[in-house]
Amino acid sequence: MGHDDEDHPQPQDHEVLNNINGRENNHDHHVEEEETVTHESESILSVEKMFEKQNVPEWRKQVTIRAILVSFGLSVLFSFIVMKFNLTTGIVPSLNVSAGLLGFFFVKIWTKLLETSGTLKHPFTRQENTVIQTCVVASSGIAFSGGFGSYLFGMSETIAIQSGDTTNDFKNPSLPWIIAFLFVVSFLGLFSVVPLRKIMIIDFKLTYPSGTATALLINSFHTPNGAKLAKKQIKVLGKFFSLSFFWGFFQWFYTATEDCGFAQFPSLGLKAYQNRFYFDFSAAYIGAGMICPYIVNVSVLIGGILSWGLMWPLINNRKGDWYSADLSSTSMHGLQGYKVFIAIAMILGDGLYNFIKVIIRTISALTTHLRQRHLLLNTTLPLHSSQQESSHSTTTTTTPSFDDQRRTQIFLKDQIPTWFAASGYVAIAAISISTLPHIFPQLKWYYILVIYTLAPVLAFCNAYGCGLTDWSLASTYGKLAIFTVGAWAGASHGGVIAGLAACGVMMNIVSTASDLTQDFKTGYLTLASPRSMFVSQLIGTAMGCVISPCVFWLFLKAFSNLGQPTSQYPAPYAAIYRSMALLGVEGFSSLPENCLTLCYVFFGAAVVINLVKDHLVKVKPSVAKFVPIPMAMAIPFYIGPYFAIDMCVGSLILFVWEKVNKNKANAFGCAVASGLICGDGLWTLPASLLGVFGVKPPICMKFLSRATNDRVDTFLATLS
Amino acid sequence: MGHDDEDHPQPQDHEVLNNINGRENNHDHHVEEEETVTHESESILSVEKMFEKQNVPEWRKQVTIRAILVSFGLSVLFSFIVMKFNLTTGIVPSLNVSAGLLGFFFVKIWTKLLETSGTLKHPFTRQENTVIQTCVVASSGIAFSGGFGSYLFGMSETIAIQSGDTTNDFKNPSLPWIIAFLFVVSFLGLFSVVPLRKIMIIDFKLTYPSGTATALLINSFHTPNGAKLAKKQIKVLGKFFSLSFFWGFFQWFYTATEDCGFAQFPSLGLKAYQNRFYFDFSAAYIGAGMICPYIVNVSVLIGGILSWGLMWPLINNRKGDWYSADLSSTSMHGLQGYKVFIAIAMILGDGLYNFIKVIIRTISALTTHLRQRHLLLNTTLPLHSSQQESSHSTTTTTTPSFDDQRRTQIFLKDQIPTWFAASGYVAIAAISISTLPHIFPQLKWYYILVIYTLAPVLAFCNAYGCGLTDWSLASTYGKLAIFTVGAWAGASHGGVIAGLAACGVMMNIVSTASDLTQDFKTGYLTLASPRSMFVSQLIGTAMGCVISPCVFWLFLKAFSNLGQPTSQYPAPYAAIYRSMALLGVEGFSSLPENCLTLCYVFFGAAVVINLVKDHLVKVKPSVAKFVPIPMAMAIPFYIGPYFAIDMCVGSLILFVWEKVNKNKANAFGCAVASGLICGDGLWTLPASLLGVFGVKPPICMKFLSRATNDRVDTFLATLS
Repeated sequence: MGHDDEDHPQPQDHEVLNNINGRENNHDHHVEEEETVTHESESILSVEKMFEKQNVPEWRKQVTIRAILVSFGLSVLFSFIVMKFNLTTGIVPSLNVSAGLLGFFFVKIWTKLLETSGTLKHPFTRQENTVIQTCVVASSGIAFSGGFGSYLFGMSETIAIQSGDTTNDFKNPSLPWIIAFLFVVSFLGLFSVVPLRKIMIIDFKLTYPSGTATALLINSFHTPNGAKLAKKQIKVLGKFFSLSFFWGFFQWFYTATEDCGFAQFPSLGLKAYQNRFYFDFSAAYIGAGMICPYIVNVSVLIGGILSWGLMWPLINNRKGDWYSADLSSTSMHGLQGYKVFIAIAMILGDGLYNFIKVIIRTISALTTHLRQRHLLLNTTLPLHSSQQESSHSTTTTTTPSFDDQRRTQIFLKDQIPTWFAASGYVAIAAISISTLPHIFPQLKWYYILVIYTLAPVLAFCNAYGCGLTDWSLASTYGKLAIFTVGAWAGASHGGVIAGLAACGVMMNIVSTASDLTQDFKTGYLTLASPRSMFVSQLIGTAMGCVISPCVFWLFLKAFSNLGQPTSQYPAPYAAIYRSMALLGVEGFSSLPENCLTLCYVFFGAAVVINLVKDHLVKVKPSVAKFVPIPMAMAIPFYIGPYFAIDMCVGSLILFVWEKVNKNKANAFGCAVASGLICGDGLWTLPASLLGVFGVKPPICMKFLSRATNDRVDTFLATLS
Repeated sequence: MGHDDEDHPQPQDHEVLNNINGRENNHDHHVEEEETVTHESESILSVEKMFEKQNVPEWRKQVTIRAILVSFGLSVLFSFIVMKFNLTTGIVPSLNVSAGLLGFFFVKIWTKLLETSGTLKHPFTRQENTVIQTCVVASSGIAFSGGFGSYLFGMSETIAIQSGDTTNDFKNPSLPWIIAFLFVVSFLGLFSVVPLRKIMIIDFKLTYPSGTATALLINSFHTPNGAKLAKKQIKVLGKFFSLSFFWGFFQWFYTATEDCGFAQFPSLGLKAYQNRFYFDFSAAYIGAGMICPYIVNVSVLIGGILSWGLMWPLINNRKGDWYSADLSSTSMHGLQGYKVFIAIAMILGDGLYNFIKVIIRTISALTTHLRQRHLLLNTTLPLHSSQQESSHSTTTTTTPSFDDQRRTQIFLKDQIPTWFAASGYVAIAAISISTLPHIFPQLKWYYILVIYTLAPVLAFCNAYGCGLTDWSLASTYGKLAIFTVGAWAGASHGGVIAGLAACGVMMNIVSTASDLTQDFKTGYLTLASPRSMFVSQLIGTAMGCVISPCVFWLFLKAFSNLGQPTSQYPAPYAAIYRSMALLGVEGFSSLPENCLTLCYVFFGAAVVINLVKDHLVKVKPSVAKFVPIPMAMAIPFYIGPYFAIDMCVGSLILFVWEKVNKNKANAFGCAVASGLICGDGLWTLPASLLGVFGVKPPICMKFLSRATNDRVDTFLATLS
């Protein structure tokens, strides 16, 4: 999962995704069985048979006060986690399972407490669990699609200075406009997919692998066996949660300044440290490494070795030749420029290849769907897809299963009228068009109008593509907007800010659209009412629009050097997004010597690697899984490979664990990873509060070479 | 086990010992069963019945080349380990089990290799295993009784300067005289106990708990079940051995100077660190903590809190009042003096109390024994002790068991003639008397003659007392020698060196005597011939006389600040022994103000605590085990409580492990501890070699307060 900046809740890469699902299903063997069962209509075993005696509560009863309160708490936690990932590397691992587990845990405690006090009115249902899950995903999704680590922070002066931008084309983040901006752009995606959800889920029967996996998880929690396993998993999660939290706490004491502490531990030697090869003791990235498939971690490491181990030292030798030796180390016209633009080339190469691939598949599958639908409507047979690769495509036959019937019946019971969705969309679009130019004067109202006219189509494309491949192309659509709107506005009219703002508008719509259709799929499989899902999404989005900016503001206040390349929070994608906007506005003129050539090479390499991989998938799948993922390789180009080492340590732990005890590793691996991630994430809350209140750690753990140390010792001797 | 400087292989404290045996027996439940079986003559199960079909090889065949080679390797390893413990805290945990396990492991590998190549001539017998065990114990015993951490190093100039000794009364360590000294004093103990071994083991049937435990372990290894468990234990040992070795290796890189690295990690904060409260990440002391009984570790911690947490800060406040504020921090007339002399008072108080206690018990038991022996000889009945507390004292009846018969038969088969032992003793004593004054001119020949005349009696007392209580009083005899010979010689005639040298002479004899009688007991229980034991002891002692000085010399060359109070190797007992010698020679005149009063208080406290403990043992044993051990409390007085924290961490790990899985903890706790100790010990070999060859670690991991760090950062900025 998550190997790119854009990819918040659902995995981006088909390959990656397959792996993840393989893993997630393994967690709960019965879950996988259920899945196969679900798809075989003739089978006797049925999930919904097991739940038949349970009444599905009315939709208003599904959205309970307790669900909203728990969602709020988890939203804050997950916003911190996502923000931390955003601002450190831009890699956000999938937190669906953690959200599911923790949501289940808190409501279980709540109901248990009420039960013992005898005041429990409504038992905890899986619909309620789905509502929480949806609300948290919607809310923490904003922490990602809000662009705090990418386009939004890329507008700031800090990043503008780094990019060597001499114009005054920047907009510093401040709480009011960010909240306002998010409110006017975040709800559009929601309204745009509401009318399409029946087509996607009932008619086309798209798989939405992540949404399906989450639903299976939630369903499994509410069977007796599943509850038992969940309880054990929660215990493990809790243990590693506290471990990771206290580890973060302990580390804090030794970080008097940015270059102190465990995060700066030159565990592979000082020379390697200077090239950012070190293990930084981050529990979150070890956890992320355990969740991400091996190939993602290995790709990141390969990318890191290629760039920081090979290319940058070589290019650095050309200092004074390829670029002026007088430039500051952060100048985009020096080495930094190579790092950023080569990364951009590789990301664009990979993005474009997959964009075209997904679009082609979308169109071909869509035409098939529509043709079939037409046929089927004429013969009034139940609707099935046929030309999909998904596992259920074989069951193109006859009567729907009990599960399907029951799910469809519930799904269609509580309708959301199309006129409501359409008028909602138009109303919000109108507000948005009138408001946004006040926030960004560079973003003219007609740019926005064009975006909003095209957006429903793009949202549909993304939601559909995601349903097919589990791959959200949100950031690619965003990058398209950067280049087109940026070029349209032009440098003299603040094209950089216009491009970045347009990216935000675009990304929010398409990303929300795919996220929420995933949620509808989850709701479909857990018999949650579409209305309760919709309300939960509305609440979650609203929460996210307030929580995320606040969390970001806290980070901004607490860590003064946020966005500096060598700081704890380098926010790599902020510089990358801004550089893309510059590229769109000014063309290639800003690149240092030979950089463009290298960019072409890496752009080409990204496409070629993808082609090779896709070819191998067909002819030799066993080899294909060893081909690295270009987008993952590009991430360490800018910030260095240290987090790759953390992630590979995570992989290694899981690998050894699987060797030693496969069943245990499968059952608890994800719980351990979630615990590590969440504990570390929760620690950033008090850590940033301490930063805001100016409480500084008392000790510096410093690493000095022997020579420097001797001098420092002499200096210290003169002090005392 | 080891809670005092002097106590090398066998535990010193009765209380402590009981605990250890409890633990050691638990390791191998069948072992404990065997033990009970052994003592119940009527029982059907018999250890020797199990081994009946195995031929006992001729004594010459027991001392094989492979056994000697393996012994040599292990001797080097254990000399390093013991030396490390000597020079860091003076606490040497029991390494019997590790020696047994590793000896078994290496010879098993050896025989396995030969077996597969078809060239194995003699199978591995338990007699051979005993020979190895004995040889290693004899050899590494020298590393302890050689006084490298106490009297011998206490003679050096380094320590003399620290003690504020202005005279030229010092003798720096150098390889030739140390080896010569050890050769002339170490063999006497051996010859002095040879004639007594039959009386101790066959006639008096003394228990020698450590020797018995070792024998049971070796016996168990050679039964099929035991071999299986041993194999598992060795696997665990190996795992933690490598872990600990590589941890030591890793730590090394960050210790560019003495005040760098993990050993200086202020894990409890800088304030606590200044008072030596910190966790120093030493795998060896964590292991030691796992082997030592809880009460030892807790006592050390209590002592540390009492001294470094309370007394020293308070006394430090009196600076300029109780003692001159101008004194250097290492001056014995300042705070350092309080630390050393209060520790000495407590050690002497505890030592004297237990000396008197053991002597009284020895005399009373001895008279009973002799009276009974007289009676029994007259009635030609088999010999039994009666008034001992040991478990077999109940079986005062009738015919000896099969085990006893067989063991006695083998034990008496290969005799060592008394004339041989006696003439050997006289010859070596003569050489010693003529040589030693050349090494130490201050030590007149008649001092040595007196010591050697008294020594056999004292050696007998110590061997007998140790057989009864498992408590070797070697260092107490040594301290007696310091005070008497020191006072006899007087300050003007180099009384300090004379006293310390006399301490060495005395300690070597009495310590060897008790160690080797223990070994004879082990041999008795494993049917090893006394002759092979004797030869093995001779070889082991000779090895030790060469290996230990070499290892010490390596430490001395590698770590230039050996013996400095704040260094990695403070050798605390060196200063303590020298201060004792000074006290003996100069009286109380050298003490700073109020120090004598405090010394009286702590001397008294040590006696009172012992009295209370011994009283409680009789009336309320459940409470008695919570009374701390004064001698253990005194250790951190001088060097600080940091190692106590390590040891308590070890205790805690074992405690939690026992809670989680008692069986596993019992079976593998000791293997884990041995692995940690041995791995760390082995790392000191390459570490000291690196030191000798001047290879210095590249990085300094430094801990600075925020204020200092800011200054250093400013300073570093001016550098670059």
